[in-house]
Amino acid sequence: MRSNDTLLDLLLETQALDRVPRFGYLIRGVDNPESVTEHSWHVLFLVWVLADHLPDVDRARALDLAMVHDLAELRLGDLARTASRYFPPGAKQQAESAAMTEILAPLPGKNHKLLTEYQAGHSREARLVKACDKLQLMIKVAVYESWGATGMTRFWDNPDNFFDGGFDLVRQLYEELKARRDASDLNLA
Amino acid sequence: MRSNDTLLDLLLETQALDRVPRFGYLIRGVDNPESVTEHSWHVLFLVWVLADHLPDVDRARALDLAMVHDLAELRLGDLARTASRYFPPGAKQQAESAAMTEILAPLPGKNHKLLTEYQAGHSREARLVKACDKLQLMIKVAVYESWGATGMTRFWDNPDNFFDGGFDLVRQLYEELKARRDASDLNLA
Amino acid sequence: MRSNDTLLDLLLETQALDRVPRFGYLIRGVDNPESVTEHSWHVLFLVWVLADHLPDVDRARALDLAMVHDLAELRLGDLARTASRYFPPGAKQQAESAAMTEILAPLPGKNHKLLTEYQAGHSREARLVKACDKLQLMIKVAVYESWGATGMTRFWDNPDNFFDGGFDLVRQLYEELKARRDASDLNLA
Amino acid sequence: MRSNDTLLDLLLETQALDRVPRFGYLIRGVDNPESVTEHSWHVLFLVWVLADHLPDVDRARALDLAMVHDLAELRLGDLARTASRYFPPGAKQQAESAAMTEILAPLPGKNHKLLTEYQAGHSREARLVKACDKLQLMIKVAVYESWGATGMTRFWDNPDNFFDGGFDLVRQLYEELKARRDASDLNLA
Amino acid sequence: MRSNDTLLDLLLETQALDRVPRFGYLIRGVDNPESVTEHSWHVLFLVWVLADHLPDVDRARALDLAMVHDLAELRLGDLARTASRYFPPGAKQQAESAAMTEILAPLPGKNHKLLTEYQAGHSREARLVKACDKLQLMIKVAVYESWGATGMTRFWDNPDNFFDGGFDLVRQLYEELKARRDASDLNLA
Amino acid sequence: MRSNDTLLDLLLETQALDRVPRFGYLIRGVDNPESVTEHSWHVLFLVWVLADHLPDVDRARALDLAMVHDLAELRLGDLARTASRYFPPGAKQQAESAAMTEILAPLPGKNHKLLTEYQAGHSREARLVKACDKLQLMIKVAVYESWGATGMTRFWDNPDNFFDGGFDLVRQLYEELKARRDASDLNLA
Repeated sequence: MRSNDTLLDLLLETQALDRVPRFGYLIRGVDNPESVTEHSWHVLFLVWVLADHLPDVDRARALDLAMVHDLAELRLGDLARTASRYFPPGAKQQAESAAMTEILAPLPGKNHKLLTEYQAGHSREARLVKACDKLQLMIKVAVYESWGATGMTRFWDNPDNFFDGGFDLVRQLYEELKARRDASDLNLA
Repeated sequence: MRSNDTLLDLLLETQALDRVPRFGYLIRGVDNPESVTEHSWHVLFLVWVLADHLPDVDRARALDLAMVHDLAELRLGDLARTASRYFPPGAKQQAESAAMTEILAPLPGKNHKLLTEYQAGHSREARLVKACDKLQLMIKVAVYESWGATGMTRFWDNPDNFFDGGFDLVRQLYEELKARRDASDLNLA
Repeated sequence: MRSNDTLLDLLLETQALDRVPRFGYLIRGVDNPESVTEHSWHVLFLVWVLADHLPDVDRARALDLAMVHDLAELRLGDLARTASRYFPPGAKQQAESAAMTEILAPLPGKNHKLLTEYQAGHSREARLVKACDKLQLMIKVAVYESWGATGMTRFWDNPDNFFDGGFDLVRQLYEELKARRDASDLNLA
Repeated sequence: MRSNDTLLDLLLETQALDRVPRFGYLIRGVDNPESVTEHSWHVLFLVWVLADHLPDVDRARALDLAMVHDLAELRLGDLARTASRYFPPGAKQQAESAAMTEILAPLPGKNHKLLTEYQAGHSREARLVKACDKLQLMIKVAVYESWGATGMTRFWDNPDNFFDGGFDLVRQLYEELKARRDASDLNLA
Repeated sequence: MRSNDTLLDLLLETQALDRVPRFGYLIRGVDNPESVTEHSWHVLFLVWVLADHLPDVDRARALDLAMVHDLAELRLGDLARTASRYFPPGAKQQAESAAMTEILAPLPGKNHKLLTEYQAGHSREARLVKACDKLQLMIKVAVYESWGATGMTRFWDNPDNFFDGGFDLVRQLYEELKARRDASDLNLA
Repeated sequence: MRSNDTLLDLLLETQALDRVPRFGYLIRGVDNPESVTEHSWHVLFLVWVLADHLPDVDRARALDLAMVHDLAELRLGDLARTASRYFPPGAKQQAESAAMTEILAPLPGKNHKLLTEYQAGHSREARLVKACDKLQLMIKVAVYESWGATGMTRFWDNPDNFFDGGFDLVRQLYEELKARRDASDLNLA
């Protein structure tokens, strides 16, 4: 592997993101689970939809962060959150940042700093994208459960999975989701 | 099926977009083909990357169009382009527009008009998204072929698959792609 | 796409029917769902088995109708029943009929009129095949549920899914099926 | 396992035929290969189409044989032809016949004798169904190869795969198929 | 098919064992079920782990038996236990033995006698491997059920699935497994 | 995640190894690629077969190393070799070692030192297992290519993929494999 030279090299490499599965679902028995590409679209869509209600958030910047937040997984795979603890502190984020630099090398206007801002989680936009990343995780778990998957019940007990970034709107969506799940009715057609 | 009431209804419904396969690849023997969700992410990424080089294009608007351009397939499936001719003229676009109205009902700030602008194909932004939709199609075909799929050779003979929307940058990417494909080397790692 | 010229063209085209998934199951989370080819075999088998008990039904004609009743999906995909309402009235049936004409073009003795008779649903044979199409739908749902799929509970509430075509035998099978399902025991090995 | 008691027991059991893969393709690397259900539909379709040209063949009887010719695989799996030689002579056919008796027990008008007639291969109808079984095998191989599968080239060298049952029409179809395959162009859309 | 000539022929043939699914899970709706290769690794691992606690067992011999105990399925597929009764007594074991002879032909130091010892089930090592084969079956069923599969409840009622080979350690593991399953909590992360 | 407490905890956790795909094949378009479980069986089989010809190798020890050499991937996934360079030197091996300690915690007689010996690669047994790991990689690539996969041609140019551990027998197998591959005939049935 190496840095991408041209724009076409980058576009060709990203096609394989469809083949990187989301490890947390895969390892708990979900068949044909969400790919990292799919997860990324859902997070983008969520940011796009919520930003209309959050005038203090720079929507374009939030979309920028969401666009690349998991792109490093093209080269690293989707490493489970719990696996980070086996590595030295910060090693995973640095690995992602290094991979991102090589992946996005042909894009002068964008670089791994988008990822660094997301990882730092300080800006409003980074907090919103992180919150959407977690909210999307639980929405997907809820839908998989409505389809019959039963391997992820412990996800509901992990407070890390309910990060709202300080946004009431997100918190309300988590609450509505949990209420429907507890009632065993997501109201899907 | 009905109109979505709340934002959560919409978010829950969109999860199933992962299960709508791109019919053109599926029917020609690609296993585990791109889903509509994946296709949508790739088109968004392409628009996001190219817009930096196209100062006359309203990037935010283009991303808006790309975000929803295939969302109606949640309810209609991915109807093959060639199948449109079996329906009355305009019936497919109207069906997509009607489905979009119901899907996006909880979003006051966005509606099926985004889709109508995309379908009309007049604005720069609509032309760019349509060009990215086609360029992404052929990039994916090229990668599938590099992996071993041989059922889509006729795609390269169809001029409809090489719509550049009037953008030189897109035309150049098609030419570079075709050159690499003809040399049987996409330069993938 | 075009009309098939020779018999071999037709035989080659039909192979891809295995890759057209039944959309209603797919979109509700069934993995590796029934293909349209599989659905067609099950409907044929059901007609074949029931016709022995129905002396007023022309068995050969019923098998003819069952053989082709979903063949148009080779070109149109399996469009969800609920999606028909987004199209002008009759547009879907006309599209299927037009596609059938082209698919079966090499068969002088058979043509899209078989499909038209099925769609009209007047003859005993058409009613039997339509009833078998629905009974097979619910038998498949019951088996998927016995395997663990839980996304199709609303199917049991939709009276359209229990069309018996006026045949007591079919009605009795629906009742027996529902009774076993309610007892959570299909009596499978 | 046991004999099926009622008609519904039989109908429920046959649903799993979709999960019995055709072993010859599976073991040579075809992903998501034809199921036995799909193979059975294609053989039925082929018989249905060819019988119109063969007035000496009892079409209804041929369809009867085709309907059940692989049903025993519900309990035995799809045992490779070459594996038969590891068993005593006739053991495989007897096993299939015994399994069929139990599967079809609820159908008084039909029984394992349909299978026995097919296995014996003497009647015109049995020969036609056997020929269609082989022709369908090679048509499927040709389509898989056109999609990119390369593990089945030796199938074309095995004369057992080109049984025409004494029917010129079938022989002509084999020849046309081989000609197109040799020209690397099946003329698929 | 024929005897393997060289070691490389054998190594190449065994690759396809990944494509032989375990029929009992497949036919009851488990998607992407364990392959025979996977089952074999799990049985080896189980033998490897338990042998440390069983000083009377020749660990190396037990591993030898486990290594090949399902290798014949490369040519025969995974024939369901219940299907054996359709064949003459001993026919299945003889078929497996004959297939094994051909598969392992290039290995002078090992041959089908390893399989014969396993089938006979008299030696301690054979009883341990058979017990591990069954224990692994039920451990896998328990995990599939924790993931959402519900088609295998009858497995728990079949005493044949709880063969402990006379080893208390195995019996204790079955009891612990059943206790956790009855409590609907396997204590998986 | 945590240390496994009891033997059953360990046995239950290992079941999910079937769902960890081998990343190098997955990302290059192989569908339904080898799982880490399958890879592990093939390496064990290879060691088992070759050890008979290598009297200086402690076969039992080699099998011990092979049994666990990829077990850490249960928690880390199958991290691509090329991805190691994004992490500090030695970080990946330490992560694997730490994960192994927790996974194998209930086995007093075995521990992560088996992995450390394998990683160090000094002993004959470690070199044999590493050589088998690489030889198996290329045997699998060759078979996937014979089935139609074309995304891994560069594997043949990477000398790291042809590590023979100093064993002539392994070197000869590589040469025979390459010769057959160059002749486009693996001599598979």
